[in-house]
Amino acid sequence: MPTSRLEAFSDGVFAIAATLLVLDLHVPDPGHSLAEGLLAQWPAYMAYVTSFLTIGIIWVNHHALFQHVRQADRTLLFVNLLLLMVVSVTPFPTALLGRYATADQDSHLAAAIYGAVMFVMGIAFTLLWWRATSQRKQARREGLLFSTGTAVYLIAIGVSFVSVPLAMLVYLLMAVFYVFPWLPRPSTY
Amino acid sequence: MPTSRLEAFSDGVFAIAATLLVLDLHVPDPGHSLAEGLLAQWPAYMAYVTSFLTIGIIWVNHHALFQHVRQADRTLLFVNLLLLMVVSVTPFPTALLGRYATADQDSHLAAAIYGAVMFVMGIAFTLLWWRATSQRKQARREGLLFSTGTAVYLIAIGVSFVSVPLAMLVYLLMAVFYVFPWLPRPSTY
Amino acid sequence: MPTSRLEAFSDGVFAIAATLLVLDLHVPDPGHSLAEGLLAQWPAYMAYVTSFLTIGIIWVNHHALFQHVRQADRTLLFVNLLLLMVVSVTPFPTALLGRYATADQDSHLAAAIYGAVMFVMGIAFTLLWWRATSQRKQARREGLLFSTGTAVYLIAIGVSFVSVPLAMLVYLLMAVFYVFPWLPRPSTY
Amino acid sequence: MPTSRLEAFSDGVFAIAATLLVLDLHVPDPGHSLAEGLLAQWPAYMAYVTSFLTIGIIWVNHHALFQHVRQADRTLLFVNLLLLMVVSVTPFPTALLGRYATADQDSHLAAAIYGAVMFVMGIAFTLLWWRATSQRKQARREGLLFSTGTAVYLIAIGVSFVSVPLAMLVYLLMAVFYVFPWLPRPSTY
Repeated sequence: MPTSRLEAFSDGVFAIAATLLVLDLHVPDPGHSLAEGLLAQWPAYMAYVTSFLTIGIIWVNHHALFQHVRQADRTLLFVNLLLLMVVSVTPFPTALLGRYATADQDSHLAAAIYGAVMFVMGIAFTLLWWRATSQRKQARREGLLFSTGTAVYLIAIGVSFVSVPLAMLVYLLMAVFYVFPWLPRPSTY
Repeated sequence: MPTSRLEAFSDGVFAIAATLLVLDLHVPDPGHSLAEGLLAQWPAYMAYVTSFLTIGIIWVNHHALFQHVRQADRTLLFVNLLLLMVVSVTPFPTALLGRYATADQDSHLAAAIYGAVMFVMGIAFTLLWWRATSQRKQARREGLLFSTGTAVYLIAIGVSFVSVPLAMLVYLLMAVFYVFPWLPRPSTY
Repeated sequence: MPTSRLEAFSDGVFAIAATLLVLDLHVPDPGHSLAEGLLAQWPAYMAYVTSFLTIGIIWVNHHALFQHVRQADRTLLFVNLLLLMVVSVTPFPTALLGRYATADQDSHLAAAIYGAVMFVMGIAFTLLWWRATSQRKQARREGLLFSTGTAVYLIAIGVSFVSVPLAMLVYLLMAVFYVFPWLPRPSTY
Repeated sequence: MPTSRLEAFSDGVFAIAATLLVLDLHVPDPGHSLAEGLLAQWPAYMAYVTSFLTIGIIWVNHHALFQHVRQADRTLLFVNLLLLMVVSVTPFPTALLGRYATADQDSHLAAAIYGAVMFVMGIAFTLLWWRATSQRKQARREGLLFSTGTAVYLIAIGVSFVSVPLAMLVYLLMAVFYVFPWLPRPSTY
C-alpha cells in the first residue's frame, strides 16, 4: 500500500489540530478593559504558540520519516492512527493549561496533564519511527536522540508541581529547541 | 472520472470529522476540583477514542477499497457523499453519548442513538463497497465479512437499553477488533 | 499556473465547510426529555442534510469543471475564491434556519436568507463556469441548464414568506434533484 | 526535500483558517428582531470578508512563490510554519474586531490589534519570500513591491485610533486591491 494517502490524511489531521487551537483564544466580554482582558489571557497565548510549534515539529519529522517509507502495512497505518489521535486531542490540554495556569487552584495538575499528553505524543512518534525504520538499523540508532528528548517531558511534569510558569517555559523551549536547524536532522532518519 | 480528487475530498472529511471530536471535551469551570471534573468526563473520553478509531478504520478501509477503483461514475460519487455525510455527523452522537452516559435519565436513548449512527455508517460503507466492486465477484464475497460486523451494532443498540457502559464497551471493542491486523484484510477487497 | 493546488485548496474548503455543519447540531441540556429535545431540532437536521448535499453537489460539479481546465490565471483564482467564500459561509445561514424555522417570529426571514445565500452560491458557480469555459462554446451552452436551476432559489425565497417548511422542502429537493445521475451530466461540461 | 507535502499542509492550514472564520458569525437569540440582530453584526461580516480575502491572497501568493521552489530545507519549513501560525490565529483578531468595532469602549484597540496581526502576517510572508528567492535576485527585487504594501498596515494601525470604520475600510481595500489582476503579478516572483 503506497503511503501517499496516509500522508494526505495525516497532513489533514496535523493542519486541522494546529488550526483548531485558535478556538481556545477567547474574545473578552465587552464592559471591562479589553487590554486587561487580553493580557490576563497570556497563558493561553503561550500555550497556543507551544502547541502550534510542537504539532509543527511532529509534522516536519513525520514528513521526513515518510520520505523514506515506500509501503505502509496495516500495522504502520494503525500506529500512525494512534499518533494522530494524540495530535488531535492536543487542543484539549492546551485549553486546559490556558484556562488554569493562573487559576487559584489546580494549575499544577493542568500543567502536568499538558506535559503528559506531550509525553504520550513523543512515545507515539517513537513507536511510529521504530516501526517505519525496521529495515534500517542506522536510522533507528539516530532516532534514539529524538526519543531521548521525549524524556524531558517527564521532568517537566515533575516541574509542574513546583512552578507552573517554569513548566510552561520548558514546554515552549522544547518546541523552540527542535525548531532550529543545527539539531540532528530528522531528514536523515 | 479519476478517483484522485474524490479521495482527497474524502480524506479531508475523514480528517476533519476525527479532529472535530476534540471539541466535545470540555474544560471544567475553575472553582471545583479539576481532577474530579476531569474524571467525571470519562464517558466523553471513551466516546472520543471509540469515534476516532471508528472513523480511522472506515478511512483505512476506504483507502483499501479505492486502491482498486480506477474510475468513479456519478453514482459512486454520491454513494461516497452519503458515507461522508454520516462520517461528518459523528461528532454529534459522540457528544450526546459523552454528555448523557452518566445522566440520570435518557442515557439509554443516547447510547442507542450512537449505535444507530454507527450502524448507518456501516450500511453506507457496505453500499459504497458493493457499488465499487460491481465488476469483482471475489472482492464482493469477501466483503460480506465486513458487513456482517455491522450487524453487531444492532445487537449493541439492544444492549443500550440494558446497560449503557456495556454498550459503550461493545462500541469500543468493535473499533479495537477491526484495528488488529490478524483480521480479514480489507486490502484484498 | 497548473490547477492542482487550486483544487487541493478548494477541496479543503469544501470538506471543512461541509464538516463544520455538524457544530450546528446541539446536544440538548439534560433535565428535559432527550427524545423531545432531539425531535424539536428537526429543522436543524433538515438544514444539515440540505447544506451538506448542496456543498457536495457544488464540489462534484467543481470537480467536473476542473477536469477540463489545465491552467488557472489570476482571474480564475479569484472567481474561485469568491465561490469558496460563499461555500465557507454556508454553516451560518444553516444555523440560522435550524434555529429560527420553528421560532414564533422571523422564521420567514431566516428561510429567505438561506435561499439568498444558496442563490449567490449558484451565481458564483455560474461565474466560475463561465470563466473556465471561455474557450469552449459547447460546454458554455450546456452549462446554461445548471444556471437555470439557480433561478429556482429566487422562487424559493418568495415561498419563504408564505410557508417556511415548504421553502425548506424546495431547498432539500433542489439538492436531491441534482444528486440523481439521470440529470444533464456536468461531467461533460 | 520536495515541497509537495509542505504545500499540502499549508493548503490545509489556509483552507481551515479561512473556513473557521464563519464560527465568528453568531445566530442572534430568538426573542428580538432578527433583522436588527443581523444588521448589528455588520462589523463581523466586514471582518469576515476582509480576513477571508486576505488569507486567500496570501494563499494565492504562497502558491505562486512555491511554483518556483523545488526543494525545501529545514529553515524554509520553519519560516513557513511561522507564517502558518499567524494565518491560523487570524480568526481571533477577526472575532475581536467583529465584536468590539461598535462597542462603547476599546474599539480602537481592537482595530489596532487586527492591523498588527495583518502586519505580522505580511512580515512573515516577506521573510518566507526572502528565504525562498535567495538564489533569484530578480524575483527578490520585484517582491519589494509586495512588502511595501505591508507598510500600509502600519498606517492603518494609526488610523484605528482616529476612526475604527475608516481603519476597517483600509483593511478591506488592502484585500480588494491585491485581488485585482492589474497589480504586479506574484506569479513572476
